[in-house]
Amino acid sequence: MRKLYHIWLSPTCRVARLALAEKKLEFDLVLEKVWERREGFLVLNPSGNVPILEESDGSIVSECIPICEYLDEVYQSPTLYGEDPRARAEVRRLVAWFGEKFDTEVTRHIYGEKFVKRFLQRGEPNSTAMRAGLTNIRTHLEYIAYLVDRRSWLAGDQFSMGDIMAAAQISVIDYFGDVPWDVSNSSKDWYARVKSRPSFRSVLTDYIAGFPPPKHYADLDF
Amino acid sequence: MRKLYHIWLSPTCRVARLALAEKKLEFDLVLEKVWERREGFLVLNPSGNVPILEESDGSIVSECIPICEYLDEVYQSPTLYGEDPRARAEVRRLVAWFGEKFDTEVTRHIYGEKFVKRFLQRGEPNSTAMRAGLTNIRTHLEYIAYLVDRRSWLAGDQFSMGDIMAAAQISVIDYFGDVPWDVSNSSKDWYARVKSRPSFRSVLTDYIAGFPPPKHYADLDF
Repeated sequence: MRKLYHIWLSPTCRVARLALAEKKLEFDLVLEKVWERREGFLVLNPSGNVPILEESDGSIVSECIPICEYLDEVYQSPTLYGEDPRARAEVRRLVAWFGEKFDTEVTRHIYGEKFVKRFLQRGEPNSTAMRAGLTNIRTHLEYIAYLVDRRSWLAGDQFSMGDIMAAAQISVIDYFGDVPWDVSNSSKDWYARVKSRPSFRSVLTDYIAGFPPPKHYADLDF
Repeated sequence: MRKLYHIWLSPTCRVARLALAEKKLEFDLVLEKVWERREGFLVLNPSGNVPILEESDGSIVSECIPICEYLDEVYQSPTLYGEDPRARAEVRRLVAWFGEKFDTEVTRHIYGEKFVKRFLQRGEPNSTAMRAGLTNIRTHLEYIAYLVDRRSWLAGDQFSMGDIMAAAQISVIDYFGDVPWDVSNSSKDWYARVKSRPSFRSVLTDYIAGFPPPKHYADLDF
């Protein structure tokens, strides 16, 4: 059976889970406590990162973007990147926007401070960083609204990796109850549409002991 | 004429320049002072990042990885990602390694502190960060040696985006004279091979007023 090595609440691991689920590919989710740096894990991926995909024949694909590009090359339908090179460039631009810009400006400040630091007992969360994340996310929600007021999905008419990357990042912040949904109805409606996709179900049932999500987290009508 | 909007010494801009040059695609290099945030620039790419590729017909592709993937899709020969999906996954793993891990562990500490901070007058370089970068780069040079002791190029038998991303990052550090070439002959030999490619010539002639490179920077026999 195909395996995906992951860690809870990691946006990039959620991206790989969602891509697999959108392609209706079955897989076992294997928790890899990356900070334990077990030897067999570093053989799978010397960078020490998850996600790692282990195909049924034992072959390995490491890191979030390489996994998603690989899945789209090998299991072509439905495509998550689009057909035309320019449409694909727009999808990848949004993957970079949410995977890098949102991650740096929002996710690291909130997930990094609220969860990673506490969980790994690396000191108290930095409240300045958390406030910056809570401010920055508003601009990103407005940008999502700008896009979906003009297009069906973030990158165009088709659901794509752009939606997956954005929703995976936001889902982590929403797990902590920190998404200001009052910023924009358009971005809220877009997230409700993503959330109601069957691929999202497994992500909505995540539950970390000691870090319960708010009530609305799994609610499709939030 | 095709244009590439770039900024000096940015590793991701160098990656796009090298990919264009490897594909023998002509282009004009346009300096975009991103910190000035001119309006026309933000229309090209709302993230405010370079590189941005403007094709001869005026169409735009933004961000480093989307540009490289787009070029490989549209101008297929020579491929910079490889033919087989698993080989391509290995190329992309190394693109992630050098584009994210090396960038975070080395480039930001050295280029960020020595150049960006001084150039934009954002205070004195942080010597602790610079020391961390100088320590971390050694492990990356050892990893390059590990790979090229087993393969012709970083990702396999063919020169690829993995080599381009790694060499672009290293070239920026080398511009500041901060690559400890004594760490490994294998990694030095690999870099000499990349440096002698015609695609690299333009990168080696970069010269920033007030920040001259060391004598060996452009030397093919360093």
